[in-house]
Amino acid sequence: MVWGSLEAAKGLVSGRPRGARALIILLSLDAGPAERSAVAEALAGLGVTVEEIRLGGRFGFVRTGGAELPAESLQRIAHVESVVPLAPRAPLALATRQHGVGKAVAVGELGEALFGGGHVGVIAGPCTVEEPAALRDIARTVRAAGAAALRGGVFKVRTSPHAYQGGGLPALRELAAASREVGLPFFTEISDPRQVPEVAEFADALQIGARHMQNFPLLTEAGQTGKPVLLKRHMAADVDEWLLAAEYVLKTGNERVILCERGLKSSERHVRYLLDVGVVPWLKQRVGLPVIVDPSHSAGDWRLVPALARAAIAAGADGLIVEVHPRPETTRCDAAQALPPADFEQLMDDVRTLAALDGRRLHAPPPVAPVAPVAPSLSPVAPAASATTAAPVRSRKVGT
Amino acid sequence: MVWGSLEAAKGLVSGRPRGARALIILLSLDAGPAERSAVAEALAGLGVTVEEIRLGGRFGFVRTGGAELPAESLQRIAHVESVVPLAPRAPLALATRQHGVGKAVAVGELGEALFGGGHVGVIAGPCTVEEPAALRDIARTVRAAGAAALRGGVFKVRTSPHAYQGGGLPALRELAAASREVGLPFFTEISDPRQVPEVAEFADALQIGARHMQNFPLLTEAGQTGKPVLLKRHMAADVDEWLLAAEYVLKTGNERVILCERGLKSSERHVRYLLDVGVVPWLKQRVGLPVIVDPSHSAGDWRLVPALARAAIAAGADGLIVEVHPRPETTRCDAAQALPPADFEQLMDDVRTLAALDGRRLHAPPPVAPVAPVAPSLSPVAPAASATTAAPVRSRKVGT
Amino acid sequence: MVWGSLEAAKGLVSGRPRGARALIILLSLDAGPAERSAVAEALAGLGVTVEEIRLGGRFGFVRTGGAELPAESLQRIAHVESVVPLAPRAPLALATRQHGVGKAVAVGELGEALFGGGHVGVIAGPCTVEEPAALRDIARTVRAAGAAALRGGVFKVRTSPHAYQGGGLPALRELAAASREVGLPFFTEISDPRQVPEVAEFADALQIGARHMQNFPLLTEAGQTGKPVLLKRHMAADVDEWLLAAEYVLKTGNERVILCERGLKSSERHVRYLLDVGVVPWLKQRVGLPVIVDPSHSAGDWRLVPALARAAIAAGADGLIVEVHPRPETTRCDAAQALPPADFEQLMDDVRTLAALDGRRLHAPPPVAPVAPVAPSLSPVAPAASATTAAPVRSRKVGT
Amino acid sequence: MVWGSLEAAKGLVSGRPRGARALIILLSLDAGPAERSAVAEALAGLGVTVEEIRLGGRFGFVRTGGAELPAESLQRIAHVESVVPLAPRAPLALATRQHGVGKAVAVGELGEALFGGGHVGVIAGPCTVEEPAALRDIARTVRAAGAAALRGGVFKVRTSPHAYQGGGLPALRELAAASREVGLPFFTEISDPRQVPEVAEFADALQIGARHMQNFPLLTEAGQTGKPVLLKRHMAADVDEWLLAAEYVLKTGNERVILCERGLKSSERHVRYLLDVGVVPWLKQRVGLPVIVDPSHSAGDWRLVPALARAAIAAGADGLIVEVHPRPETTRCDAAQALPPADFEQLMDDVRTLAALDGRRLHAPPPVAPVAPVAPSLSPVAPAASATTAAPVRSRKVGT
Repeated sequence: MVWGSLEAAKGLVSGRPRGARALIILLSLDAGPAERSAVAEALAGLGVTVEEIRLGGRFGFVRTGGAELPAESLQRIAHVESVVPLAPRAPLALATRQHGVGKAVAVGELGEALFGGGHVGVIAGPCTVEEPAALRDIARTVRAAGAAALRGGVFKVRTSPHAYQGGGLPALRELAAASREVGLPFFTEISDPRQVPEVAEFADALQIGARHMQNFPLLTEAGQTGKPVLLKRHMAADVDEWLLAAEYVLKTGNERVILCERGLKSSERHVRYLLDVGVVPWLKQRVGLPVIVDPSHSAGDWRLVPALARAAIAAGADGLIVEVHPRPETTRCDAAQALPPADFEQLMDDVRTLAALDGRRLHAPPPVAPVAPVAPSLSPVAPAASATTAAPVRSRKVGT
Repeated sequence: MVWGSLEAAKGLVSGRPRGARALIILLSLDAGPAERSAVAEALAGLGVTVEEIRLGGRFGFVRTGGAELPAESLQRIAHVESVVPLAPRAPLALATRQHGVGKAVAVGELGEALFGGGHVGVIAGPCTVEEPAALRDIARTVRAAGAAALRGGVFKVRTSPHAYQGGGLPALRELAAASREVGLPFFTEISDPRQVPEVAEFADALQIGARHMQNFPLLTEAGQTGKPVLLKRHMAADVDEWLLAAEYVLKTGNERVILCERGLKSSERHVRYLLDVGVVPWLKQRVGLPVIVDPSHSAGDWRLVPALARAAIAAGADGLIVEVHPRPETTRCDAAQALPPADFEQLMDDVRTLAALDGRRLHAPPPVAPVAPVAPSLSPVAPAASATTAAPVRSRKVGT
Repeated sequence: MVWGSLEAAKGLVSGRPRGARALIILLSLDAGPAERSAVAEALAGLGVTVEEIRLGGRFGFVRTGGAELPAESLQRIAHVESVVPLAPRAPLALATRQHGVGKAVAVGELGEALFGGGHVGVIAGPCTVEEPAALRDIARTVRAAGAAALRGGVFKVRTSPHAYQGGGLPALRELAAASREVGLPFFTEISDPRQVPEVAEFADALQIGARHMQNFPLLTEAGQTGKPVLLKRHMAADVDEWLLAAEYVLKTGNERVILCERGLKSSERHVRYLLDVGVVPWLKQRVGLPVIVDPSHSAGDWRLVPALARAAIAAGADGLIVEVHPRPETTRCDAAQALPPADFEQLMDDVRTLAALDGRRLHAPPPVAPVAPVAPSLSPVAPAASATTAAPVRSRKVGT
Repeated sequence: MVWGSLEAAKGLVSGRPRGARALIILLSLDAGPAERSAVAEALAGLGVTVEEIRLGGRFGFVRTGGAELPAESLQRIAHVESVVPLAPRAPLALATRQHGVGKAVAVGELGEALFGGGHVGVIAGPCTVEEPAALRDIARTVRAAGAAALRGGVFKVRTSPHAYQGGGLPALRELAAASREVGLPFFTEISDPRQVPEVAEFADALQIGARHMQNFPLLTEAGQTGKPVLLKRHMAADVDEWLLAAEYVLKTGNERVILCERGLKSSERHVRYLLDVGVVPWLKQRVGLPVIVDPSHSAGDWRLVPALARAAIAAGADGLIVEVHPRPETTRCDAAQALPPADFEQLMDDVRTLAALDGRRLHAPPPVAPVAPVAPSLSPVAPAASATTAAPVRSRKVGT
C-alpha cells in the first residue's frame, strides 16, 4: 500500500528525523562520481548542508541543515531521482496524542461540556438563530434530553448570495442570552477573521465550517482567542489536509481543538455527503484530539440522522453535533435535516447506551437549570466575573 | 435537491405511471401549433402512441403505448425540450418491500443462517481457502463465536494476473467438506458464468464481488440457480446502479438477494474504501432486501474492522461478512485486513448487544456441531433431504 | 438524466418563473379535500401566498408571494410530497450570456490583457515572488513568448502552517514594480478580506484561489474593488457551487469575473487533480463569462503541463494561467510544476495555432516594452490616468 | 508526493529488483537483537529466504527467494514495521515501451486501421446495430469523413435488465457484412467469456467495456484470440488497476492492446463522466501501448463531444472512438450522445489539423471502396482467404 510505503521510506535510513526539515536526496541509478559532484555542488549553491550516504548500490545525501527548500524543489536538480521527507507533516497534531491519550476538551465557563477522554458530548440546537422564544424552547428541550452544549448559526455560510445570511450580531446576543438562561454553553460558526473578536466575546466555542477548513487567516485568528475551536472537515479534504488545518490552530498555542467529521462528497446522491465513519477510529488511534460527528449535514435528511449518529458513537466518536427543531417548516435554513425533538430524545437514549458499551459516558449538565434568566438586552458576559473559577484564556483539559 | 425534484417531476402530472414505459414529452416554450404538429408527426413516424397534454401554458404529450424508445431518444426530436420518465427504474427491487417488510433470506439446507426480518447474521472465515486443517479451525472458531455462515474464496478475483488466483475446484471441495463438518453453510465468490453450475452444486450461497456487480451474464446465471445471491456494491456504484444489478437477479425469479455494502472509492486513502454507512438506513426505508456490510474490505486494515462493524450494526445492517484468520502472515491474500480470532469474539459480543438495542437478535446456529464429518470426496448435498424441515421465517426459493 | 429532469420539472407548469422565489408545492397522491385545506392553512400560517393548481389528477399550489421560505422548509409540511423551485439558482451568472456572448474581460490600465470574446489570454509567471531580479527576467521571458499578464503569489495559501507563507507586502511592491517595468498587468492571490484594499491598490486583477472559492466575505470584498476577479474552482466544487460563488462577486455589481478551472480531486493519483476539460464547452454554451484553465496546478508535474494546456485551448478555453520558472530548484513553492522557459515558448506557439483553428487569436502586448522602470517605492497607479485610453473590446468596470 | 516517495522507497537499497517478488522487510525502530532473531525465525518458518540489511540505524531484511507471500502478509509479523515491494506491479505493460516507442497496433485483415506510432485512428459508428440499411449508410459516411474503423454494439451491456440488450448474433452478422462491404474493419463489445470465440470469428477487434475492465476471465479469453483488444478504463479505475487489467491480456502473449479512456465518475454532473485528459500524456510517457479516447460516453451529450475529442487529440491521444448517428431519435441506446454526421465531418477536419501539429497524421483508408458487396446471409469470413496476406493469429506491429 502506498501509505505504508511512505512510512517505510521515511524509516529506511535513520531512526529519527534530525529536524523538522530533514530529508533524503536520492540520486538516479546511473549517477557516477561526476554526477554526485554536480549534485553536491548544486546543493551547496542553494545553501543546503548535506552528508553523503550510500544505500546498497545507490548514492544520495541527507540534509542536515542550511536552506529549507521543500522536497519538490530539490527534486528538480538534475540526476536527483527522488527526495523523501523524513519529518511528519502535522507534528503538532500528532504530538497531541503523546500529551496524554484520553484528555478531554472542556467547553463553557464551568467546563459544562466535555468531549473526549471517555466523555461523549452532544451539541444540539437549531441551524440558525431565528426566533428568541423558539430558541429557548429548543435549548431547554435538548438540555433535558442530555445535550451538553447548544449550537446556533448567526453568521451563516450560504452557497448562494440570494439565500438567508443569518441574523448577525443581534442574533448572537439572543443566542448568548438563551445559552446563559438555559445553562448550556454554546458553539457558533465564524467565517470572517474580522468577526472573530466580537464573536469570541460571547461564544463559548468557535465553529469553523467545512467550507472554511482551509481559511488559514480565520484559523489563526480563531486559535488566538484561546477558545475551543470545533474544526469541521471539508467535504473533500484528506485527513492530512484536515490535520494541517488543525495545525494552524495548534500553532497559535491553542490546543483545544475538536475535530468534526461531517461527510464527504461523492458521486452518489442518496445521502447528501458520505459520512467517513472509518476516520473516527483511524484518528483515535493516532491523534489525541477529540473527534465528533455531524450526522445532520452528512445525511441532509432527518430520517437518516439517527442511524448515522448511532453509527458514529458505535465507531468511537467523542460526540455529536445535531440540528434539532420542532417546526422545521418555519425555518429559513436546512429544514430537511432538522430532527424533531421526540426523535432527538430517542437518539440520546441510544447514545447513552452505546457510549456505555465501551465504558464511556454521555457527559451532560445536571438536570436543574443553573442560572437565572438574563435580560434580552444582554451585555457581553463579563470575563472578570468568571475569572475566579477559570483563567481568561484557558486551555483546560480534564482527564479521564 | 435534485433527487427530490426528480420525484416531483414524476408526480407532477398523473398519479400512477400508466405502464413500465410511460413518459412525458414536453415541448419547448416557444413551440406553436406548427411545432406541435411536427412533433406529433415525428412521434407517429416512430410508432409511439401519445395523448396531447397541456400543463399551464406549456404543451406536451404523454406516451400511452407503441414503440418503447427510451427518453433520451425522444429528446432528440426538434422542439422537444425534455422527456420525463414516469416509471421507477428498478421496479422489482422496490417491490420487494411491498412483499412484506421484515422477511429474512435464509441460507443453508436447514436455513441455518438468516439475514433480515429482525435477524442479524454474520458470515466469517478466511479470505481464501488455503490449508484444510486451518480452514476447519477457523470455521469452528467463528461458529463458536456466533457466526451463522462461513466464507472462503476459491476462485479469486485479483487485480493483478501475477497474484495468487485461488485454489479452484479442489479448494471448493475442501470448503464444502469443512462447512458440512463444522455445521455452517458457506458463501463463495463466482466471477465467470461458466463456473456457476459447478459452484452452485456445492455452495449454499453465491457471492458476486464488487468488481463483478455489473457482470450481467454472471448475475443472470447466478440468479437462475435459485440459490441466495450476496451482491456486493461496486466501489463506485450509485445506489441506482446497484439496485439495477439486483434487478438482473430478481428478473430470473430469484428473490433471495442479499445486498452488501463494502465501501466506496474516494480521494482519501486513510481507510481503503469509504464505508457508506448511510446507505443502510436509506435502503431499509425503501427496499425489502436484507442489507449487510463488509467491514474488512472497506477498512483494508484489521485495526479498523471492529469499529466499522459496530457502526454498521448500529446503523441497522442485517449482518456482516468478516475476514478472520489466526495467522495472517501465512496467507496469500488480504492479510492486512484479517481479524484475529480473539478480536472477532469480542466483536461478536458487541454485535449481540447492538442488535438487541432495537429489538433484533444475532442469528447463530446452536452451540453443538450438528453433523458428522464428511469425506473429502463429497457428493453434492441432496436438496430433497431438507425440503421437509423448512423453518417458519425463511423465504426459501428452491433452485433450478 | 437527472439534470434534464430537473429542467423538465421546472418547465412543467408555466413558461416563466414568476419571480425569484416561485415554486410549486405538490401534495401527496392520497391528499383529499381535508389535507388540501390543512396545507393551505399551514401555508397561510407561514405567511406564504399561493394559488391552488391541478396537474392531471394531482393537487398543489404555486407560491405567488409572501414569505420566502426555501423549498426544503415547505417540504416538511405534512401531506406535501415535494416542492419544486422554478427559478434558476445563479441568475446573475446566467444573465452574463444575455448581455452579449463574446464580450471580453480586459485587465490592466490600458486593457493590455483580454480574456474571452475571441481573445485567448495567457497569464504566466512564478508561483511565488521571491527574488526581484529573477522576477523581472521571468516577466520579460513570458512577455516575449506572448503572455498577456503576469502572475505571482505574495500572500500564499499553504496547506501547512510550517510551509513558506509568501513575501507579503514587500513582495507585492516588487511585483507591481516588475509589472510596470516590463509592461504586463499582473494577477495576485488574496485570501483574507482584510488584505483586499491594500492589494487592490497595486494589483491589476485579484485572484481567488480554489480553497477560498466559498470564502464569501472575501468574494464580496474583492467584488467591491471593481477590479477583475479571477475565480478558481474548488477542487471539489460542482459547477453550480462555482457559479454561485461567482454570483457573490456579480452581486456587488462587478461583472469582470474570469472563471478558472484547475482540476478536481479524484481517487486517482497519477495526475494531481483531474482537469475537467468538459466544463469549458459546457460553460461556454451557457454563461457569458470567460473561462480559463490552470494546467500547472492540475498536473502538479511540469511534464504534463503542455498537454493539458493544449487540451484546454482545443476545448475552447479563453486562456491559461501557467507557472514558469527558469530555476525551479531554487524556489520555495510548487517547484514540481514550474515549466522551464523553453517549454513555455513552445507551448505558446501551440496555443497560437490552436486558437486560430476556430478563428480566435492569442491576445498579447506589443513586442516593445512600453514604460520606463519604476522605483521600488512605487506609489499606486492613478486610475484616472488611464480612463481616456480604454480599448474598444473591453467591458471594463470602474471600481468603487 | 506519495507517488514519488514510493519510487524513492523502491530505489533506496539496491539498483535493480532482484526478481519479480523482491521486497524489503523493515523492522521497527526499537527492534533489538532478540526481535531481529524472532523475525528471522518467523520468515524461515514461512519459507522465505532473506538477507539481513542495515540502513542507517535501522535493521531489516531483503527477500532473495523462497515463498512468495505478498507484502501485506509479511507485514503482520510482530516487530515488522513495513514491507516495501521492489518490483513494478504491471511489468508487461511497462515493458511495452521498451519494445519500441512508437509502434502502432494495426486492425483489420489488411491493417487498414492504425493506432499509435504517429498514426491517429478514429473508430466511428452507431451505438448499437439496429437497422441494416442505416448501418451501411453510417459506415459509408464515417469512412468518407476519414474514420479508420467501424464500431457497433450487438451484445449490449445495459445497466438495467429492462433496457434493450442488443441484436445478438444476427446483428453481428449484419455488422460484419456492412464492414466488409464498406471496407472498414470493425470493433464490437464482448461481455461474456462464452461469446468470445463466436464474436472473434467475425470481429476485427474486440472491445472490453468499462464495466468489464476487471472481468478477468473475459480479458484472458479475449487475449487468447490474438485479435486486437480495445480495453476501456473503468469509470472509477486507477491507472494502476487499468494497466493490471491490460496485464491480463498481455499475459496471454497478445500485445495488441489499445487503451481507451472514457471518463471517470465524479461528484459533478454537468458532464456525465469526467474525461481524464491528463492520463493521455502520463501514459504516453511511460507505456508503449496506444491510448485513445471515447468522448461520446464521457460527454453523454453530443454538444460536448467535439470539444472533448479535440482536447484528446491535442493532448496526444492516438485516436478516438465516437458514436455517430443521423437519426438518434430512432435509436434504442445512447441517443443523447450520438453525433450527427455533419458534426462528425467537421470534427474530422479538426482532428486532421490537430494531429499534424505535432507531426502525426490521421490514418484513414483510401477513398475508394475496396471490396464488392457481400450477401446478407454472410458466412464467417474465411480465415484461409486472408492467410496469404497475414498470419492467422497476428500480432502485427507497424512502425513509424
